[in-house]
Amino acid sequence: MIKKSISFFFAFVLCVGLSFGQKQPKYIFFLIGDGMGLNQVHAAELFLASQENKNSIVPMVFSTFPHATHATSHSLSHGVTDSGAGGTALAVGYKTKNGVIGMDSTGTTAYESIAKKAKKKGMKVGITTSVSIDHATPASFYANQKDRDMYYEIGQDIIKSNFDFFGGAGFLKPETNAKGEKATPLIPQLEKAGYTVVYGMNDFNKVKSGTNKLILMNDKGTSPSALKFAIDQQPNDMNLANITEAAIKTLSQGNQGFFLMVEGGKIDWACHSNDGAAAIKEVLDFNKSVQKAYEFYKKHPEETLIVVTADHETGGLAVGNGSSTLRINNIKNQKISQEALSAKINELREKNGNATWEQVKTLLSEQTGLWTEVKVGEKEESEIKAAYEKSFVNHQNETAKSLYANNNKIASLAVNALNKASSLGWASGNHSAAFIPVFAIGVGAENFSHKMDNVDIPRTVAKIAGWQF
Amino acid sequence: MIKKSISFFFAFVLCVGLSFGQKQPKYIFFLIGDGMGLNQVHAAELFLASQENKNSIVPMVFSTFPHATHATSHSLSHGVTDSGAGGTALAVGYKTKNGVIGMDSTGTTAYESIAKKAKKKGMKVGITTSVSIDHATPASFYANQKDRDMYYEIGQDIIKSNFDFFGGAGFLKPETNAKGEKATPLIPQLEKAGYTVVYGMNDFNKVKSGTNKLILMNDKGTSPSALKFAIDQQPNDMNLANITEAAIKTLSQGNQGFFLMVEGGKIDWACHSNDGAAAIKEVLDFNKSVQKAYEFYKKHPEETLIVVTADHETGGLAVGNGSSTLRINNIKNQKISQEALSAKINELREKNGNATWEQVKTLLSEQTGLWTEVKVGEKEESEIKAAYEKSFVNHQNETAKSLYANNNKIASLAVNALNKASSLGWASGNHSAAFIPVFAIGVGAENFSHKMDNVDIPRTVAKIAGWQF
Repeated sequence: MIKKSISFFFAFVLCVGLSFGQKQPKYIFFLIGDGMGLNQVHAAELFLASQENKNSIVPMVFSTFPHATHATSHSLSHGVTDSGAGGTALAVGYKTKNGVIGMDSTGTTAYESIAKKAKKKGMKVGITTSVSIDHATPASFYANQKDRDMYYEIGQDIIKSNFDFFGGAGFLKPETNAKGEKATPLIPQLEKAGYTVVYGMNDFNKVKSGTNKLILMNDKGTSPSALKFAIDQQPNDMNLANITEAAIKTLSQGNQGFFLMVEGGKIDWACHSNDGAAAIKEVLDFNKSVQKAYEFYKKHPEETLIVVTADHETGGLAVGNGSSTLRINNIKNQKISQEALSAKINELREKNGNATWEQVKTLLSEQTGLWTEVKVGEKEESEIKAAYEKSFVNHQNETAKSLYANNNKIASLAVNALNKASSLGWASGNHSAAFIPVFAIGVGAENFSHKMDNVDIPRTVAKIAGWQF
Repeated sequence: MIKKSISFFFAFVLCVGLSFGQKQPKYIFFLIGDGMGLNQVHAAELFLASQENKNSIVPMVFSTFPHATHATSHSLSHGVTDSGAGGTALAVGYKTKNGVIGMDSTGTTAYESIAKKAKKKGMKVGITTSVSIDHATPASFYANQKDRDMYYEIGQDIIKSNFDFFGGAGFLKPETNAKGEKATPLIPQLEKAGYTVVYGMNDFNKVKSGTNKLILMNDKGTSPSALKFAIDQQPNDMNLANITEAAIKTLSQGNQGFFLMVEGGKIDWACHSNDGAAAIKEVLDFNKSVQKAYEFYKKHPEETLIVVTADHETGGLAVGNGSSTLRINNIKNQKISQEALSAKINELREKNGNATWEQVKTLLSEQTGLWTEVKVGEKEESEIKAAYEKSFVNHQNETAKSLYANNNKIASLAVNALNKASSLGWASGNHSAAFIPVFAIGVGAENFSHKMDNVDIPRTVAKIAGWQF
C-alpha cells in the first residue's frame, strides 16, 4: 500500500510536470534535405549496410529520432512542387504557386517565416545551405519575392531580415538585378548593414569571438552556386557540416536561444541528374549536419527541438528494380559525380578527340567500376558505345541536360547503367509528388505524430514554440 | 487560485488515468494492404482529389489516423521481401527467408503469431483476405510451413489454429498436397473440425446467430484464387468490406474481444501488372474495410486498436514522371483491369482474328479512354500498333507475364500508355524495398511513433496488448 502511494506520488509529479512544465524550445534546428524523399533516406541507409555486408540498414542519426512521419508536398499551383513553393510552405506555413518565395501566388502579400517569428521573439537566427545563399529553399526563410530567379533582390532581403548568420556557397547574382541590369553590388551593402563577410573556414576561424551578423561563403575562387558534391569533395573543401558548426558557434554566443535552418541542397541536384551515388553521398553528408545538431541536442535535451524534413522528392527514385536481391553495394564503385565524370570525358575529348573505345571504357571503369567490378548489360553497353562513336568518332558532342547540369551523354549513360546495376530506378529527371519524410526529437517532437501536409510542419514548430500564426 | 487548483485536480486525474488506467485493447484490427507502399496510398488520395478537380488530396480514413509512420520491410534473405517473409514478419515479429510461412529460415522452428497469442488469451480471432485464404499473408497468421506454395498443408493448419473466422475467395489446392499427390479433401476436414463453411454473402446471411467457427468463401462457381479486382466488381460480387463486416459480426458474438486481420491482397496483384487504375481502386476498396473497422472503433473507442500497414511495396510506383502538373485524373478513363481488358482482346481475337486496327483501337478507347480522352504519345501508339500487327495480322499472340497474370501484350501496352499519361511511373513488375506505411488509432496507438522495422509492428501490438514475446 505504501509502495502504491509512492508510485502514485511519482506519477503525479511526472504528470503535472508534463502538463504544466512543458518548456518551449530555446534552440530549434530545422534541417531540410532538398529532394530527399523517403527512398533517398532508405537508399543511403541500405548503402551503409551494404558496406558492412548487412542485408538490412545502418541508420543515420535522424532516422533514429523518436518521432517519424511523412507529409504531402503539393503546391498551390501544381501537384508537384518546385523548391520555391516547397521552401515557402516549410518556411511560412502557407502554400503558394511554384516559383514564388515567401509570398502569396500573386506576389502581393509577403508571409512571415518561422525564422522571422523566431527573430521577433528575440532568438538569433541562422540560415545555411550547401548551395547558394539566395537559392529558393534558404531564401524562403528570409526573403519575399515573387520569383525565385530574382537572386539579387532576394540577396537584398538579407538586410531587412537582420538575421544573425548566413552560410552557403555564395550569391548567384550579386551585381545584376531581376531586369538584367547592373546594380549596386550586394556584398558592400551587406557589410554596410553590419554583416561581417568571410570566405572559407580559415577566414571564419579568424573571426573574433563576439562577432554577430556573419555571412560565411566558400573560399574565394570557388563556385558561388554550390559547394562541391560530397562525392567530389577533398578534405580541405568546405562542407555543409563545417557551415553548420560555424552557425552553431556563432548563434550560441549570448543566451537568447536560436533558430537554425540547414539545407542539404545538392541531394536534389544529384537526383535531377539521376546520379544515385552522388545522391546517396549527399544524404550522408546532410546527415553529418544533423549529427552536429544532435550533438548540441545532447547537451541541451530539455531545451532543444530538431526537425528534419524535405521540400519534395526528386527523380521518383525506386529502391529495387526487379530482383529481390538488392545490389546497392555496386554504387560504391562510382568515385566521382556524373558532373565530374562528364568533365573528365570532355577533357579527354579535348586532349584526344580520337580516343579509342578501349580508352574511354578504361576511364569509365576507373571512375564507375563498370565492366571491371560491375557487369554491364548488352543494351546499356551498346547505348554507351553508340554515344562514344557519335562523340569521339563522328565528333558530334551530345549532352544530357537536367535542371542543374548539362552533362556529357557518355557520362550520363554510364551512370544510368551503374544505377540500374545497383537496383536503383528513376521515374524522371524532375521532382515527384512522393511524400516527404519528417523526423523529430526534443521539446514538442511528439507533435509530429500523424501524416501531415508540408505547411503543417512550420505551423507545428510555431505551436510548440508558442508563436502566433 | 481556486481555478488553478481545479485544473490541477483535473490534470492529476487525467494523468493518473493515463499512467495507471491504460487499458489493453479488447478489439484489435490489423489491416494489411499487400503491396501498398506510401506512393500507392498517395496515388489513391490524389486520384480522389482529382475527381473533385482539387490539386491536393482527399484523405482515406486511415491516413487521418492520429499516428502515422513508416517501416523497413527487408527479409532475412533478401533486401526485397516476398509476401511469405513479409507476412511472417508482420504476423510473428521475426524475419525469415523469402517464401517461408511463420517459421525460421530453415523451416524447423514454428513461430507463434500475434493472432495465436490473441487466441491463447481468450480473444476470438478472424483472418480475412480478398485473395485465397491459404495465400502467404493470411497464412502467416495461422500456419507454419516452410514453403508458401504448400497450400494444402497451410489449409490444414486452420484446424490446429482453431481460429473463429476465416474469409476469402477460397482455397487454391484443397485436394492436392505439396508432393502433388491427391489428398483427403480439405473442406470436409474443416467441417469435421467444427467449421461451418459457407459460400457467398447470401449463405452467410442465413447462418444462424451464435454460430462460431465459420469459413466464408466466395459464391460457388467463382474463382477460389481471388475476389474480382475492385475495378471489375459488379454490385452483387462479394467484396472485402462484405467479408470484413461478416467477420466483425461473427467475432462480436460473446464478449471475449477479438483480433481481426484483414488483407487487401490484390493491391499487390494490380501493381505486379503495373496497372495503376486497378491498384488505386484496390487501395480505395481496402479503405472501405478500414472504414468498417473505424465504425467499430467509434462505438468502442476506449477498447479498440486499429493498425493499418503493408507487407511491402510493389512495382516501385512513382507519382509524378516528369511534369509538375499531375494528370492522375486521366486514370479514371480506365473502366476495367488490365486482366479484364486482356480477356476482351483475346475474345475479339477469337471472334474476329482479322479485326482491323480501328476495331482494336475502338475497343481500347472504350475501356481506357486512350485516343478519345487521353492523348497517346507517338512511341506508345507505335508500340501498341506493332503488338496489334503481330497479333491480329501475323497471328502471333504475345503476352506480358507478371506474377499473377499473363496478359495480352496489347492490353499491357495500352495500360502502360495510360499510366504514363496519368503521371504514374513504375520501376519494375516486382516488389521494391520502399518503406511500408503504418497508421494507427485507438488504445496504444501512440506507440507507433518512430520509424520502425516490419517486425516491430506486431511486437508493438503485443506490447500494447500485454502479450509476451
